[in-house]
This record gives sequence, C-alpha cells and structure tokens, in this order.
Amino acid sequence: QIADEIEAHFLKNAHGPLKGRRILVTAGPTVEPIDPVRFIANRSSGKQGYAIAEALRNHGAEVILVTGPTHEKIPAGIEVKQVQSAREMMEASNAALPLDCAVCCAAVADYRPEIETTHKIKKERGGLTNIPLTENPDILKTLSQMKEGRPRLVVGFAAETDDVLGHAEAKRNRKGCDWIVANDVSPGEHCAMGGDRNSIILITDKGDEAWPEMSKADVARKLADSIAEALRGPTLVKAAE
Amino acid sequence: QIADEIEAHFLKNAHGPLKGRRILVTAGPTVEPIDPVRFIANRSSGKQGYAIAEALRNHGAEVILVTGPTHEKIPAGIEVKQVQSAREMMEASNAALPLDCAVCCAAVADYRPEIETTHKIKKERGGLTNIPLTENPDILKTLSQMKEGRPRLVVGFAAETDDVLGHAEAKRNRKGCDWIVANDVSPGEHCAMGGDRNSIILITDKGDEAWPEMSKADVARKLADSIAEALRGPTLVKAAE
Repeated sequence: QIADEIEAHFLKNAHGPLKGRRILVTAGPTVEPIDPVRFIANRSSGKQGYAIAEALRNHGAEVILVTGPTHEKIPAGIEVKQVQSAREMMEASNAALPLDCAVCCAAVADYRPEIETTHKIKKERGGLTNIPLTENPDILKTLSQMKEGRPRLVVGFAAETDDVLGHAEAKRNRKGCDWIVANDVSPGEHCAMGGDRNSIILITDKGDEAWPEMSKADVARKLADSIAEALRGPTLVKAAE
Repeated sequence: QIADEIEAHFLKNAHGPLKGRRILVTAGPTVEPIDPVRFIANRSSGKQGYAIAEALRNHGAEVILVTGPTHEKIPAGIEVKQVQSAREMMEASNAALPLDCAVCCAAVADYRPEIETTHKIKKERGGLTNIPLTENPDILKTLSQMKEGRPRLVVGFAAETDDVLGHAEAKRNRKGCDWIVANDVSPGEHCAMGGDRNSIILITDKGDEAWPEMSKADVARKLADSIAEALRGPTLVKAAE
C-alpha cells in the first residue's frame, strides 16, 4: 500500500494534462434497503468507474470517487467516499462541488422502496405482496442542469438492453449532460457487466464515436484523454457560460 | 489450488466421524432479478455456510454446497453448485437427495418479483411504481416435511432482528426442521453479517444452547461436531423412521 501511495504520488505529480482539475467520478451500484436484510440493487462491479478514476488521477487530476459497495481495491491518491443509497451518493456528489468535470459512471437505482422498515419483514405476518417504490434523486440530471456553478463537462453512462444508441442519445438530451458513454448490457450480449473488457459508443455534441472493444483500463485512458482535451480547449458549447 | 486439493484429500480421508455421510449445505444470498440490471437480494456473505461445508468435509462427509453468488473462495474437496435464484437453489437441493443431513444456511429470498422483464425497465416510459411479488419455494420447509426420504437431520438458520429466540423457536416448529441456528442481525447489534465472528443459539428438541461469541470457523467446527454426534446415535426422534 505504501508502494501504491508512492506510485500514485509520482503519477499524480507528473504535470499531466489534468493537473489542477477537480473531477468527480461516481462508481458501483447503489443499494436501497427494504429492511435490515433485504435490498434492491443494480448489477455493477464498479470496475469501469474505478479504472476511470485512476486514469484521471494519472493525468494529474484531483479525483473524488463516490462509490457504492464494490469489491474493487480502494485506489491510492484519490479521495474516496463510500456510500450505499442513491440519496447518499447525491449528497456526497453535491459535497464534492465545485468541479471542473463529473463522470457519472455509477449504476444508480432510479427507485427505492417507499418505506424502509427497521425490523425484518416476517412472511408469517402477511409478509410482502409488493414493494411500493418512490423515485430517487437523479444525480446526472441534477449536476447537468445546475443553474450556477455547473461542472464544465458532465459525462453520463447509459447501460441499455435494446436500441442502445437511440436510448443513449435520448438520455443525453433528457438529462442535459455533455457526453454519454453508452454500452449494451443485454443478457445475450458479450456483456460489459462484471467483466474486464468493454465496448462503448461515446456520444458528444459532435456525434457518435463507436470505440472498438478494449480493456476497461484502455476505455478509461482513452476517456481521460478526451476529457483532458475537452477541458483544455474552448470547444464545449455548454462550458461557454 | 493443487495444494488445496491435496489438503482436502487428506482431510476428507481422515476416517472422520462423518465418513460416508452425504450432507447438503446451502450458503450465500439468492438473487431475484427484476430486469437485466435490477435485482432484489439478501445481505449474506456466505462465510458461515462455506465454513460449515469445510468443517463437515474435514469430518469426512461427502459435502454438496449449493451457493448463491458470494466472494468466498470455492472450497476444495466439495461438490459446489452455483445458483442465483431461490428456484434454482431449490432445484439443486432436490437434485442432491438422498441426504443424511441438510444444513440450510443460505439467506433465501422469501419473495421474488412476479414478472421478470428481459428488457431494462425505462423510467421515462412510466417506469416502476411498485414491484409485485410472489412467494418463492421454501427449501427448508420442503426438505423438513418430505414424506419419503427425508434427511435424518435438517438444520435451519434464523437471522432475526427482534425476539430472536421466540422467532427462531417458532420457525423450527413452522418449518418442521430438527435444529435451528439463530442469530441476531439487528442493525445496532454486533452484526454477524459480513463479519468473521458469530454468536448463535442452537435450538434443538432438547432445548436452547447459547454459544459464546466465536469465529465463524469455530461455530462451523462445533456445529459439525454436533451433527456428527446426532448422526451417530439413535437420539433423533424424527430420524426414527
């Protein structure tokens, strides 16, 4: 771990293209409790988000990683906030402001159980016939549509099972984020979830860019390069506040 | 891994007290899909169940471990069946029959979503306002109440948050199992879930036995000792078929 810290120190001080930039990365799933033993969650290993946080650090950025429960190793040289629910993730993301960039990679639950009971729900007492849900805060939308102090670049992720490009482009418009990283998570597909490789489409105001399949570390490096370029130039329309 | 196999080989052939006994252990959570990305699950690390499977193997038993998704290492010298849902766990448990003993340690979801959609449910298309549930098969009850070929000893687990002993004793009667291993998983408690230590009460036809807090490996060894004793003698009322 000391070796990691030293490595991170040298990597971070490498006068990288993102030196001085403050960037939020959200990663992993959120976990929404039903009662003390049951919960609703999303499938997300956190691998892609952690790789992005590391790639941004290696480019010299000051990275804040807000993460749901994963089995990934806590990376060195990064400020890590561990959260469970979408509400906790929203709060930690807000607390990270002001930001130059936000990369919302976490698989945030859109919904949570309306009521969280503190005692285990007993089947023999009538149990559960359905779980009433309520909407969670929308972290990507909230950051994208900030009236004041919006991060210059907000990047969302779209894990889709059908009409990947159509859904992802619609998501970009609906949320108001600058970029969307889209991938296909159909059960039948060569699935990105949990694996070490990924095949993504980067959707920006300039159009769609399908990247060849590569390791999640390579996706992270390539995305960090693109972020560094976007934050360098005056190319972002939405950044022209 | 070869060292593990060799170790397991020697441990298993140690002419232990459970030599020749066929024992099922269920462990870990079950995962009940809502759609390709969302699921309902239970909090369970699988640690106690895996430790029990290993302790039974070390006593010479032929162990079949039916396990939900965990991050535990697959133990050597044990037949392992990996499953996701309660229905899959029920099927794998039935397939393991005939058995001398069944140790149902898994945190099986009582309920699953009534409908599993194969496409990701979209929030912007109305999304989810509630999740209708349906009852899952009850593995412990099914094994306990078999009319023919019931395992001589069926052991259930009860993770409770209030009135631990009362709920656990009621569970023993309701399910028809021989023993219940009860523990307190209240959020405020020194919680067994995920940790390496456990504090249990063993409930049998002879009464309740509160064990002092010990490691999960020690709980496993002590339980394996008790199982070996129970399967040796003619002491089990329900075994007198």
